[in-house]
Amino acid sequence: LPSDPGAPAANETEAASLFDPLVSSDSMLAATSPRAWTASLLTFERELAAAQADVGLLSQRGAEAVADATERLFVDSAALGTEARVSGNPVVPLVRSLVALAEAGGDGDAAPVHFGATSQDAMDTAAMLVSAQGCRLVLQDLDAAEVSCAELADRHRHTIMTGRTLLQPALPVPFGLKAAQWLMGLTEASSSVLQASRRLAVQLGGAAGTMAAFGDRGPALSARLAERLGLADPPLPWHTDRSRVVSLGAALVAASNAGAKVALDVLLLSQAEVGEVSETGSPGHGGSSTLPHKANAVTSVAVLAAVRRAHAAFGSLVAGAVQDHERAATGGWHAEWSALTDLLRAAGGCTHGAAAIVHGLVVHAARMRQNLDRTNGLVVAERIALDLSGDIGRAEASSVVGRASRTAQEERRSLRDVLGTMPEVTSRRTPEQLDALCDPFGYLGASEVLIERALASRAAVHGEGGMAP
Amino acid sequence: LPSDPGAPAANETEAASLFDPLVSSDSMLAATSPRAWTASLLTFERELAAAQADVGLLSQRGAEAVADATERLFVDSAALGTEARVSGNPVVPLVRSLVALAEAGGDGDAAPVHFGATSQDAMDTAAMLVSAQGCRLVLQDLDAAEVSCAELADRHRHTIMTGRTLLQPALPVPFGLKAAQWLMGLTEASSSVLQASRRLAVQLGGAAGTMAAFGDRGPALSARLAERLGLADPPLPWHTDRSRVVSLGAALVAASNAGAKVALDVLLLSQAEVGEVSETGSPGHGGSSTLPHKANAVTSVAVLAAVRRAHAAFGSLVAGAVQDHERAATGGWHAEWSALTDLLRAAGGCTHGAAAIVHGLVVHAARMRQNLDRTNGLVVAERIALDLSGDIGRAEASSVVGRASRTAQEERRSLRDVLGTMPEVTSRRTPEQLDALCDPFGYLGASEVLIERALASRAAVHGEGGMAP
Amino acid sequence: LPSDPGAPAANETEAASLFDPLVSSDSMLAATSPRAWTASLLTFERELAAAQADVGLLSQRGAEAVADATERLFVDSAALGTEARVSGNPVVPLVRSLVALAEAGGDGDAAPVHFGATSQDAMDTAAMLVSAQGCRLVLQDLDAAEVSCAELADRHRHTIMTGRTLLQPALPVPFGLKAAQWLMGLTEASSSVLQASRRLAVQLGGAAGTMAAFGDRGPALSARLAERLGLADPPLPWHTDRSRVVSLGAALVAASNAGAKVALDVLLLSQAEVGEVSETGSPGHGGSSTLPHKANAVTSVAVLAAVRRAHAAFGSLVAGAVQDHERAATGGWHAEWSALTDLLRAAGGCTHGAAAIVHGLVVHAARMRQNLDRTNGLVVAERIALDLSGDIGRAEASSVVGRASRTAQEERRSLRDVLGTMPEVTSRRTPEQLDALCDPFGYLGASEVLIERALASRAAVHGEGGMAP
Amino acid sequence: LPSDPGAPAANETEAASLFDPLVSSDSMLAATSPRAWTASLLTFERELAAAQADVGLLSQRGAEAVADATERLFVDSAALGTEARVSGNPVVPLVRSLVALAEAGGDGDAAPVHFGATSQDAMDTAAMLVSAQGCRLVLQDLDAAEVSCAELADRHRHTIMTGRTLLQPALPVPFGLKAAQWLMGLTEASSSVLQASRRLAVQLGGAAGTMAAFGDRGPALSARLAERLGLADPPLPWHTDRSRVVSLGAALVAASNAGAKVALDVLLLSQAEVGEVSETGSPGHGGSSTLPHKANAVTSVAVLAAVRRAHAAFGSLVAGAVQDHERAATGGWHAEWSALTDLLRAAGGCTHGAAAIVHGLVVHAARMRQNLDRTNGLVVAERIALDLSGDIGRAEASSVVGRASRTAQEERRSLRDVLGTMPEVTSRRTPEQLDALCDPFGYLGASEVLIERALASRAAVHGEGGMAP
Repeated sequence: LPSDPGAPAANETEAASLFDPLVSSDSMLAATSPRAWTASLLTFERELAAAQADVGLLSQRGAEAVADATERLFVDSAALGTEARVSGNPVVPLVRSLVALAEAGGDGDAAPVHFGATSQDAMDTAAMLVSAQGCRLVLQDLDAAEVSCAELADRHRHTIMTGRTLLQPALPVPFGLKAAQWLMGLTEASSSVLQASRRLAVQLGGAAGTMAAFGDRGPALSARLAERLGLADPPLPWHTDRSRVVSLGAALVAASNAGAKVALDVLLLSQAEVGEVSETGSPGHGGSSTLPHKANAVTSVAVLAAVRRAHAAFGSLVAGAVQDHERAATGGWHAEWSALTDLLRAAGGCTHGAAAIVHGLVVHAARMRQNLDRTNGLVVAERIALDLSGDIGRAEASSVVGRASRTAQEERRSLRDVLGTMPEVTSRRTPEQLDALCDPFGYLGASEVLIERALASRAAVHGEGGMAP
Repeated sequence: LPSDPGAPAANETEAASLFDPLVSSDSMLAATSPRAWTASLLTFERELAAAQADVGLLSQRGAEAVADATERLFVDSAALGTEARVSGNPVVPLVRSLVALAEAGGDGDAAPVHFGATSQDAMDTAAMLVSAQGCRLVLQDLDAAEVSCAELADRHRHTIMTGRTLLQPALPVPFGLKAAQWLMGLTEASSSVLQASRRLAVQLGGAAGTMAAFGDRGPALSARLAERLGLADPPLPWHTDRSRVVSLGAALVAASNAGAKVALDVLLLSQAEVGEVSETGSPGHGGSSTLPHKANAVTSVAVLAAVRRAHAAFGSLVAGAVQDHERAATGGWHAEWSALTDLLRAAGGCTHGAAAIVHGLVVHAARMRQNLDRTNGLVVAERIALDLSGDIGRAEASSVVGRASRTAQEERRSLRDVLGTMPEVTSRRTPEQLDALCDPFGYLGASEVLIERALASRAAVHGEGGMAP
Repeated sequence: LPSDPGAPAANETEAASLFDPLVSSDSMLAATSPRAWTASLLTFERELAAAQADVGLLSQRGAEAVADATERLFVDSAALGTEARVSGNPVVPLVRSLVALAEAGGDGDAAPVHFGATSQDAMDTAAMLVSAQGCRLVLQDLDAAEVSCAELADRHRHTIMTGRTLLQPALPVPFGLKAAQWLMGLTEASSSVLQASRRLAVQLGGAAGTMAAFGDRGPALSARLAERLGLADPPLPWHTDRSRVVSLGAALVAASNAGAKVALDVLLLSQAEVGEVSETGSPGHGGSSTLPHKANAVTSVAVLAAVRRAHAAFGSLVAGAVQDHERAATGGWHAEWSALTDLLRAAGGCTHGAAAIVHGLVVHAARMRQNLDRTNGLVVAERIALDLSGDIGRAEASSVVGRASRTAQEERRSLRDVLGTMPEVTSRRTPEQLDALCDPFGYLGASEVLIERALASRAAVHGEGGMAP
Repeated sequence: LPSDPGAPAANETEAASLFDPLVSSDSMLAATSPRAWTASLLTFERELAAAQADVGLLSQRGAEAVADATERLFVDSAALGTEARVSGNPVVPLVRSLVALAEAGGDGDAAPVHFGATSQDAMDTAAMLVSAQGCRLVLQDLDAAEVSCAELADRHRHTIMTGRTLLQPALPVPFGLKAAQWLMGLTEASSSVLQASRRLAVQLGGAAGTMAAFGDRGPALSARLAERLGLADPPLPWHTDRSRVVSLGAALVAASNAGAKVALDVLLLSQAEVGEVSETGSPGHGGSSTLPHKANAVTSVAVLAAVRRAHAAFGSLVAGAVQDHERAATGGWHAEWSALTDLLRAAGGCTHGAAAIVHGLVVHAARMRQNLDRTNGLVVAERIALDLSGDIGRAEASSVVGRASRTAQEERRSLRDVLGTMPEVTSRRTPEQLDALCDPFGYLGASEVLIERALASRAAVHGEGGMAP
């Protein structure tokens, strides 16, 4: 009989997740771990007391007692998660432990822990602190990916390849323009994440969003707390206005999608039959347990898995964002915590993976050219028709080139050769002119300008005030 | 035998949808109709030719011939949708019709319709034109809803009610603060939609995003076309960078969610057992076919249906946004058209519905007060404990109030009465002090300030440059 | 200035949707049209009255009056959709019209229309009637697709091609096995849709699910109505138990996914650089407006767009399926109507498209073989190592073949050639033995058996009771 | 400065997740842990070797060596997850470790670990083993919930309450019927999960789904392995046909939704203003850190959070189910592992939570009756009109009762009282008759029969062959 999969196995250590490392980075896993969440909750409680002392709601000694308790508290995250079932969130048992610790070491009275705050104040603010750190990591990865894309765009301005629409050859494009498109996507994602991370705000509304327990000092306290935590001070508490969280999610999805675009193109370009790029030359990378010849684009595959996880987690944030009254009963708020954790991890996986892919990317320029040539020059057909239309009208030019294209395809000859045998053409263009017209390098349009623009856009975004949000 | 539901019924007219009117507004249905889409496609073709004339790629006469054809063309949308199956999109058959029309009336040569453009240029730009109009309508609805919420917030600063967390009474809040929260959500949504609508950009990349057919005039042409269409000129063609569409979607979802928040609160407040608001006093509204006494909050229900549709459509945009190479083969682009249409409609439904709800909202202030009083004063327990802690320490104060609360709940007496019989309390507070402490009006914290902030935020957003995107 | 896209254009007809035809079939569009929905609503009212007469709740004359009214009623679907806003669904205005018509032609008293039923009874039952017809169409398409796949599987048992994992060559597979996999997926989907369509049930609970108005004859009436409508009679009314709808949705998604699997494989196999299949040889199919050489796999692309729409609509059904009390207030029920319509349409698009793809599929067997040969025989490396391990042990065999594979790859020689130069190999295997070992036809495992099983599975499913649900 | 949330904190232990315990059960967390996954992977490898010995592909001694290695192997799950990045899944490093261990202890040759199998064979089969155990737990929870619901349905046949549609009073219903509806939903979910768990199948296709390495013994080996593992033997390997996984997901969502329906109703019924049920009388349950009077329905809230997680995870399974060629490159397969884990956990949370809710449910029958009476008898208006129509015609009866209802509502009198003052009524009905007509107990329709049916359905499902799948 097979062993029961749920039974504890003596010969094994326990990990947080077997699958998260594949779709995230180590630093992001650490930044969103239970440890990081509880550290953020404790940070909230400590800085709340400090800010209360700042605005005169608490004695300095009281704030120090709270700070002391947050430092001395030993948190058993697993137990905390279980205790959360009774009250619906981990803040209640965490505060109880803090109070108990402060009492034990204090003067017999309860320490002013969590004074006037509600569970949601702690959870939401902790979520923002975790997110702020997560955004920093995503921005670092995006920056690294952008640096590599910028290099690729610059280096491959004249590396010509097949542009593909609906997965069929369309027109020649420089590989540098493809890299510039990746760069543009990543840069815009950076801009979105920066903007969203600047909106990350403290939550401080008290039991029903009125800041009731703070008398008339609520607004000042909120401002001071925000300053201490490096977060924005929102005009109103946002306990049931989750647009901030959805905006953050949208930015993280933008980053994930920008990374996934790179992965999808690389995956398709590294198909054996295409062979225009390889993920990396590192030994063992993408190997199989059974097939010695395999070199899978595994990082691309992992990024494409991560982006799916990002979409699912974001969908959960969006669906849960419509929240009732002064704190959601219908699960949207409670579902947010793991969805946000998942989304940060997945976004980290997409951007970290994309950075690794473009950093190590091996570009097979000869193969690019070879694949382009295999289209028998049809990718410049549009141009020939355009050129001839000045002489013989658009309809006739289109007809001539259409016939030539069909012949080229059917007889597997180059369009140049076929055109060179057609009197309608040879009577009007010299062989040298035909060579020039059929040279794909001559039909790259504004590619060079567009590459420059992408490089400039990156500079503009990162000049806006640096990477650190 | 029942009649076959698919069979055409002689006694019926055909509508675009039986269900869309419930979850959208008439103006939004018009703005996103097949007619609106094809009109936008024709606008693209006309203005492309005009812009080409502007930058010297086309004669003025050529541009006029195109404009003339777009005006004379009779479009059979149903047929066009069917013809789209052959090529995968409606642009190919539409351009063919335009060319045929221009030829028929012209000088025998094909008119310079769609010159150098690709199907995606037309579809994407048309999508942006449709979206621009959709955003205008959403902004109008948001504005109307904000006006009503601002009035409610202002008028009900002192209308006290039960603040509810996890659907249970928490603390007293003014109804004006609830309206201010709605207002804040709507205002932030306005800001998001405005911002997204400013990013709506022309698409002009040609067959593979290089602007190949326009020689060195591609960038100038794109700029000119953008100007003509009132859209932004993007740094790069964005054929497979759909972040612009996702951002637009996120803004529309923000608007939908802001409307749905209003609907959800109103729905819950108008439960017979709560009875604190009614959607409207209009006769017949919310009636049932069988039950004469019913007054359902049907607009709220419809908005909550619409927001579900918005989420599903947005999810489709997000999932489809990772697109391969120079035009997506994996369906993401083709799925965008109806998803965007659905999302615009649903967002229009949410905001239009929310505007109607808050405009007609009947507020039952007496019932609000009555429900609050039924909590037997427990909603101010936090405050009493806070007040007593100065005298007897926090632990003892908490214990005293805890006991009093339990007694009040079990014996269905008011907390004020119970406290008035406890020597620990009466020895320290006069009856007048106790009355004041138990008055919920005294425990509203920063509500007044927060209401002011919400009103000011609205002014700030709409002062940023007016409503028109 | 560009024309306002929302403004009515004089030169255009109106269609239900510009985009639905691309992702659905004409018959499915008809079966799910507003006309089909209202016809189903009228069918419900007519058969309800007839069933009431059957069980003695109504006179035969009363039932005839209702039937007469349903036949004479002229329904303006567009107006009906708009009127639905007042009461939240189209049944209330439809019943009002029926009653008015019956009164006008009757004996002065209201006709017994909709007697004892509630709006949800009519809507849910109509949804089931529409779905039943939709399922019939999906099953027809699946059947057609299965027939073609079975033919492909049978005909291509010995057409050898590259099996691809993570888009890289793995082992040789017969194309017939790939077709058998498609067939198996389609067959299982047929089985799911059949099963779901048998669960489609009448809804008859009255105003709150107790069948209150029918006295003790509710259960008998429900049974009779179910019989008349060809639907199942459920044990309980299912007004807020939407598992039936979710199951139906899951089956439609299974059908959509089975179709999309075909489309995705065909899309990838028809890449120019792979070229192993083409969608069809029909002229114009997959053409481009600008590029004369294009032959896009547009039906595959459309199916991949349709499956995205199916997933979004299904997600909406799933998310909305948790419904409160005796009729959902939170939008889940109201959002179901369009989500179900969308899902039926998309499922119809996927299965109809898949049937068209496999029916017209052009298989380029020579190219398949050519691509396989280009892997230089590495796809049989696993087999050689296996064979040699009997002589020299598994570790040594693996090492020998590993070295040979690397040499083959680096020097672009065939593995057979390289092995033929290695003494470790040639001392143990004759050239003839090596030829046999390297022949990919010799390494197809159980392919033949598996193809037979797929063919047999189809027979088994359709032998279960025929296609008609 | 606040401490960096990502930094390791010395004073803390690490948990797998801080949030999962709130939305899952301990037994489900164990059954889906990294430990459970790796145990299942090892089970696959061990039983594969054993089955190979059974069919003569391996010596008995070889199989024992493999079994021995799986028992002796110490697995560091965290390291394994990280190593999975190189090859894209944890099987490659796990097999490498097994081989190394077997070699070290063996006769110098590599042990026959994983012979002829591919990573996907191991992962998919392990997923099925984990799912089988997960389904067992879900079925246990469903069973427990059903037992409690059956008791509630039986005990409360005559506990009358307000039936609510669109959250407004509709007709009287027995609470027992509501419990019967819950029961029916849970029972149907049990049936779905049972059915899906019977389809859980072994995966054994080898590198490309042809079972190539097993010669002609592939099918026999697959059958033997399935038998050993207690899984089904599929007709074909299903590496890129994920319908089995989607079906499983749909069943788990059905279970989640059935649990969430209970939670949603309980949440709404326990609103302070409704007060008809309470989650439990356990001390501390649903308490707040700040508000001493709070008794939140936290388990219901947690279930509603869990069902959102279930929907998101299922959406990911559905979206990823369309997979290319012989193993998915586009992330769908790799994303499945965590999505399935999440879904099992969430389903476990929903069903475990629902079981706890109904087990501890406190029913406030007096309050139910009180709320019903507060509708002033309007909930029986439909019945009065029906009764009078026999005497004065339907139109007139409807008009009389309509007037009486309006008066009752406006003057807050009971409908019985108002009717008792109307000559049109009193001339036709005695006071005793009126009392009887207005008694809500007399207007419960088929409630009793429907309750019996729900009880019988449960018996039928569980009689089908017991709970164990």
